Amino acid sequence: MRLGDLLSTFEGSAPLAAQDQERLDRLYAHLCQQTEMFLGYPVAKDFDCRSVARFLELPLNNIGDPFAPSTYQVDTREFEREVVEFAARLLRAEGDTWWGYVTNGGSEGNLYGLYLARELYPQGIVYFSQATHYSVSKNMHLLGMRHIMIRAQKSGEIDYEDLRATLRIHRDVTPIIFANIGTTMTEGKDDIAKIRQIFAELAISQSYIHSDAALCGFIAPFLAPRPAFDFADGADSISISGHKFIGSPIPCGIVLALKHHVDRIARSITYIGNLDTTITGSRNGLTPLILWLAIKRYGEGGFRARVAHSLEVAEYACCRLREIGIEAWRNPNAITVVFASPGPALCQKWQLASAKGQSHLVVMPNISREQIESFIADLVKDGGAL
Amino acid sequence: MRLGDLLSTFEGSAPLAAQDQERLDRLYAHLCQQTEMFLGYPVAKDFDCRSVARFLELPLNNIGDPFAPSTYQVDTREFEREVVEFAARLLRAEGDTWWGYVTNGGSEGNLYGLYLARELYPQGIVYFSQATHYSVSKNMHLLGMRHIMIRAQKSGEIDYEDLRATLRIHRDVTPIIFANIGTTMTEGKDDIAKIRQIFAELAISQSYIHSDAALCGFIAPFLAPRPAFDFADGADSISISGHKFIGSPIPCGIVLALKHHVDRIARSITYIGNLDTTITGSRNGLTPLILWLAIKRYGEGGFRARVAHSLEVAEYACCRLREIGIEAWRNPNAITVVFASPGPALCQKWQLASAKGQSHLVVMPNISREQIESFIADLVKDGGAL
Repeated sequence: MRLGDLLSTFEGSAPLAAQDQERLDRLYAHLCQQTEMFLGYPVAKDFDCRSVARFLELPLNNIGDPFAPSTYQVDTREFEREVVEFAARLLRAEGDTWWGYVTNGGSEGNLYGLYLARELYPQGIVYFSQATHYSVSKNMHLLGMRHIMIRAQKSGEIDYEDLRATLRIHRDVTPIIFANIGTTMTEGKDDIAKIRQIFAELAISQSYIHSDAALCGFIAPFLAPRPAFDFADGADSISISGHKFIGSPIPCGIVLALKHHVDRIARSITYIGNLDTTITGSRNGLTPLILWLAIKRYGEGGFRARVAHSLEVAEYACCRLREIGIEAWRNPNAITVVFASPGPALCQKWQLASAKGQSHLVVMPNISREQIESFIADLVKDGGAL
Repeated sequence: MRLGDLLSTFEGSAPLAAQDQERLDRLYAHLCQQTEMFLGYPVAKDFDCRSVARFLELPLNNIGDPFAPSTYQVDTREFEREVVEFAARLLRAEGDTWWGYVTNGGSEGNLYGLYLARELYPQGIVYFSQATHYSVSKNMHLLGMRHIMIRAQKSGEIDYEDLRATLRIHRDVTPIIFANIGTTMTEGKDDIAKIRQIFAELAISQSYIHSDAALCGFIAPFLAPRPAFDFADGADSISISGHKFIGSPIPCGIVLALKHHVDRIARSITYIGNLDTTITGSRNGLTPLILWLAIKRYGEGGFRARVAHSLEVAEYACCRLREIGIEAWRNPNAITVVFASPGPALCQKWQLASAKGQSHLVVMPNISREQIESFIADLVKDGGAL
């Protein structure tokens, strides 16, 4: 029994006009149907929020820093701290050297990381590859930061030679690296160990690295070889999406940063009369519970199994596409399968994001071989094959 | 029967370990109790989200501009547009001269308004009164905008003489006014008609006015005399909180702006490769439904009645406080009652925000005379009286 069925039988539920209730019912039915059919978005659909639905009765607000006291007591900050701590441990932050909070999505986490970098190095230049998500340009524009776009390899990974050559020209300016740990289109991962190596070769002693691990923050720790992207590898801040690999009905995320960076910010913010180190002020109290539920249910072992499943089905999908004559590939250890776009009708039906004649499947943990087969059957029927 | 009771009887609800389930249950019970007891926060508690709880099953995402097409189809953008349109009409935006979206809170709406102003007038100076919420300084710092703080009157309203004198000194620079339509502590409202008058006197032809109507966006339209704060009065953008007077379990808000301003931004953003005119990218799809529910349930008439109730109980509270010998006052047509702070135990118990020896009650629509009486009884017992 789904929550929807349950609630629709609940007597006296909503003092809504009949036509408004009907509109909500139609929307719900329509969205249930839409949700069945997508393979193109990196969004896990197998979350279960029933045990937190009752919190919708309460005026929750995790206002401000989750680690600082607050007079507003209708909050879930204790649970939020556990979520952030789980992520910090997974991403190998040492002891209590880290700080973080639950954001409204990966983009806010990226904005936060760039904001920290700007406060530390106001004159710094941001380097980012051309495979970077468009929202990052918006963030840099908002913050008024100098930035240089670097070529990307076909895999989506940054072109280290272009990065090296460009850094060499600007050795007098502190570099701020915006590293993609899974690009949107191909799931390319920048290697921050290689980037640190370039800094060493060029005798660059001061730098900042932000890892945008929106998709891969909870995937990469379970891969072998383990990608170089986290605090032990030299990241200064990391942003992860909650509604992608973890799964959530509400966009959310986790941002983590080295505590001594945040402390420097906190000081500069105190100066302008504000001890709040988060970006938003009033903050969602439900999403920390949703992430906490996922962490309690899966644990590290569960996330590891989800990653293994996704990798296996991704490999399966890639082989099947090739079997029916469609050009398809994926990066090593990626859950994203890239292939030549089918016609617009199929792109619409399966909600495939497409660019430059390429589409991708993002094989989230809820996607089964059976779903891959029905997609393959559609492609064959469409004549997309051969 | 509450949603919580209903769901706890739902068989097989959560595959959570028993101790985790117990922690959630304890949190829920604790927060229910905390919610009963607050008078100090401007947060309506009488929302009813049961009919939207089922949407927590779906990976909702209202990504990007609610008025532009999107390939992600598990969204509530149609309902979001209705919410924004209701607000636009209430705040007297003409025809289709406006644009807006549902934000993560009043602070995001203020950031958006200031961002628009900066894009239009990169050299502009922001003028704001010293009674302005601390988050605004953070926003201006984030955006790197020049700003000057203006004195506030005791009421919380901006000091027009100080504003006039300061504007006169900087007549060569476009002024950007950050107007408070209900300050945090005393609910003082800046009069943007008076501010426009000062512009006229100083022959200032180019300016931008953002109204921060976090608390009063859905109150001020029903007051007589109607405060000068909206589009018909000359605002360029307005931010409203959803979780304050309207009521929501998740912080949210509505931002509105003149469409031709946003179009100019959209152009500059296209240049950096991005058609998304919102700040966040991935956006909450549940909060638009929550606001839509409130709008459908109350309608304009319902909001008018809620305002009348709050004003009446605020006046009652003010009189009762004075009757027991406590200095208390409120601004004309304000639902905020300011009084000398009681001891820390009572501040904690009733979750009163306090500053400089002053506390306030914010008489939200769910607050009754009975609650005021039990608060008064506590004060008398505490010896706060006399």
